[in-house]
Amino acid sequence: MLEDASTTRVLNPDREELQELVRSQLQALLAQSNYEAAKAILIPVQPADIADVIESLPTRLQVVGFRLLPKDKAIDVYEHLDPSVQEALLEDFKHPDVLEIFDHISPDDRVRLLDELPAKIVRRLLQHLSAQEREATALLLGYKSQTAGRIMTPEYVSLKEEMTVAQALDRIRQIATTIETIYTLYVTDASRHLSGTLSLRNLLVAQPTDIIRDIMTREVIWVHTDTDQEEVARTIQHYDFLSVPVVDSEQRLVGIVTVDDVIDILEDEATEDIYALGGVQSGGDGYFRTNLFTVARKRVVWLSVLLLTNTLTTGVIRAQEDVLEQVVTLAAFIPLLIDTGGNVGAQSSTVVIRGLSTEDIRGAQVWRIIGREAMAGILLGAALGVVVTLWAYLLQGDWLVSIAVGGSLFAIAVLAAVAGSSLPFLFNLMKFDPALMSAPFITTAVDVLGVAIYLSFARWLLQL
Amino acid sequence: MLEDASTTRVLNPDREELQELVRSQLQALLAQSNYEAAKAILIPVQPADIADVIESLPTRLQVVGFRLLPKDKAIDVYEHLDPSVQEALLEDFKHPDVLEIFDHISPDDRVRLLDELPAKIVRRLLQHLSAQEREATALLLGYKSQTAGRIMTPEYVSLKEEMTVAQALDRIRQIATTIETIYTLYVTDASRHLSGTLSLRNLLVAQPTDIIRDIMTREVIWVHTDTDQEEVARTIQHYDFLSVPVVDSEQRLVGIVTVDDVIDILEDEATEDIYALGGVQSGGDGYFRTNLFTVARKRVVWLSVLLLTNTLTTGVIRAQEDVLEQVVTLAAFIPLLIDTGGNVGAQSSTVVIRGLSTEDIRGAQVWRIIGREAMAGILLGAALGVVVTLWAYLLQGDWLVSIAVGGSLFAIAVLAAVAGSSLPFLFNLMKFDPALMSAPFITTAVDVLGVAIYLSFARWLLQL
Repeated sequence: MLEDASTTRVLNPDREELQELVRSQLQALLAQSNYEAAKAILIPVQPADIADVIESLPTRLQVVGFRLLPKDKAIDVYEHLDPSVQEALLEDFKHPDVLEIFDHISPDDRVRLLDELPAKIVRRLLQHLSAQEREATALLLGYKSQTAGRIMTPEYVSLKEEMTVAQALDRIRQIATTIETIYTLYVTDASRHLSGTLSLRNLLVAQPTDIIRDIMTREVIWVHTDTDQEEVARTIQHYDFLSVPVVDSEQRLVGIVTVDDVIDILEDEATEDIYALGGVQSGGDGYFRTNLFTVARKRVVWLSVLLLTNTLTTGVIRAQEDVLEQVVTLAAFIPLLIDTGGNVGAQSSTVVIRGLSTEDIRGAQVWRIIGREAMAGILLGAALGVVVTLWAYLLQGDWLVSIAVGGSLFAIAVLAAVAGSSLPFLFNLMKFDPALMSAPFITTAVDVLGVAIYLSFARWLLQL
Repeated sequence: MLEDASTTRVLNPDREELQELVRSQLQALLAQSNYEAAKAILIPVQPADIADVIESLPTRLQVVGFRLLPKDKAIDVYEHLDPSVQEALLEDFKHPDVLEIFDHISPDDRVRLLDELPAKIVRRLLQHLSAQEREATALLLGYKSQTAGRIMTPEYVSLKEEMTVAQALDRIRQIATTIETIYTLYVTDASRHLSGTLSLRNLLVAQPTDIIRDIMTREVIWVHTDTDQEEVARTIQHYDFLSVPVVDSEQRLVGIVTVDDVIDILEDEATEDIYALGGVQSGGDGYFRTNLFTVARKRVVWLSVLLLTNTLTTGVIRAQEDVLEQVVTLAAFIPLLIDTGGNVGAQSSTVVIRGLSTEDIRGAQVWRIIGREAMAGILLGAALGVVVTLWAYLLQGDWLVSIAVGGSLFAIAVLAAVAGSSLPFLFNLMKFDPALMSAPFITTAVDVLGVAIYLSFARWLLQL
């Protein structure tokens, strides 16, 4: 490996600046067909950054840029590339170099790419794999999407109980460069049943003559091939593991999931929740990858549902139109009331939904939480109610309207806090996604009841 | 270490069920003062799970439960405990056992706890630390909260360039049990400047006589002591590192941040964003730890701001009261219009805000994104506008009202999509948190302009 000591100090500017610098240099050199210099500037750059640089090159230069890389680095870079660029490079797949890279990337990264490709291309690519890799890939593809089986890699180190520490270290040295991680080792019996685990750290500090059976940990935490990927991620997070073993229905070890994949999974799950809270159903792809009409179609379905439920508010107001005819000014405060109700409801539900998702809150604490939120609603409603009564009077000088607004705001705040905190629990119990379902129902409940309370209260005040 | 092979198969039920089982057994045994049996049932349980079990015990039993643990396991369990329980156990700090645990937990976990305690207790505890640990702790406490310096640990392995592989492995074996991670090794010169890194994997496959200088990687990715913790987390995520070195202003290595802390940081950052989107400003503590009045006070400030901006909608409607007097039914559709506008705006802003946060979207793509969202707004507005015009007519039979509602909905949808996608970029540019600032401004813009458009359009239709 060529070392260039003089670049060490320069190598850590802001990551975005670094990538932009490399990209512009690379593009300039490629334009001059100066391939030797182009190869040289990529040498000290990390694979993850090279991947970003290639992605930001104009499409026609991406293949050329990728072909500059030595084979080992090319495999690492390929694993980091965005699926759309991985696909584009494969268009070139008759080229033996590219095929070889495809054969060498980790099975879990390969499967992630194959998931994005049309079936015809997938079949052709599978044929080009070596027999062993094809088997590993087919195994993973056989599992349901977003489960442990789909995201695992079969490239782990397995040891036998009767090995000595010295033998184990020899085995590790032999296979170290082809394995995803050697830092957690798995001990299996003759039928591939998982009998223990061992960290490389413990292996290193043991005596060379110690037997694996005596130093391994028997209490193994594992996940099943059909465990949901978010549950896998939270298991690794909870125990601070570097990897977790995956077993099939016969308790045989079939693969592992590593911590780096977990970070990405948890981020995707958080994004999914954030989207759901905002009323967006994502296809799971990056922002620009989803066709605009597909996006619009998904959003319009959801918006139509919300539109229909809003019909109830329309109905309530029309039923009370006579009150509005008497005091038209009442209408001026409708947006204020339903927006405030919406905000209070959003605050309460956001805290509960996120708490359920990160397991900071458990289902058993539901009544304590609803009680707490109700109290918060009462405090908030009282404070805001007073403020808005005075503010409304200052704005338009009619006490009846001001009191109607203030009193309704109090009721709406309490209502919103209770609805906002209880509906997520209800949806959770019914196995619906609280992040997606809660907002429309809370909004509808608050709007309909809020407006009904407001106009009824005003009607009552008018009769005094 | 005692091994209990018979528990291996039982040990992997649902994590919550397991913890509940252990808790009830433990509580029953403690009630009978059967401490030997209580110790025994904890033996095969993972530290992370024991911590959860202790947290769920009644407060009076927590100390007793914790004291059952052998010292090594007690340290691990203590590191996993919620800060409130860590604090409660320290009340007991005159007890030499507890103090010893405090001295042995990792420096970064210790600092995380000290951050939560009153200054008086912090001073007393620091006095009880051994000199070396006190120095390490003081170093970390000297750094600003939520920076690399604060979250790092000084317990890493440093090697010298001139060492042989065999010497390096010996050194690692000596200190392996006191170090946070031995899987990435850091090479420093005599003045503690970082000159290279090396993975344990590469060390193991090298020849015992190889020199470190020749096999290490010189292109080191590092972070600075005052790098924001989210940037540290994204660096580890981007490069799939197990740990990242932290250097001070003189480029000397002072600590490392490991991947397990990163997962928790990214989750906290996602929670912060989700809270901000919901209009909640969290203190960063768990749900039940924050005093209810403090929570209410923070929320009421934000709600009051939103309340005041809503005054603009009130003003717009009052200015157009005459239109409402003519056609009171127009008021019935106000909630529907502003809710739909709010939903479209939320959809657009959610996608942009999350994209900026995960760096899936970059600032440079702003116009392309706003254009895309505007197109989506046009498509959605057209579809919904037609639907709602017909629906409004079905509901109340007045074409003027129906067309006013449908036409306004179109305008509102486009407006909301543009505002929703552009305001996050604006706030990002102004160095404000887009997740927190966007929603109220988008809501206000959509409400005020939406209602103005609606009533003006209705007025114009009336004059035809």
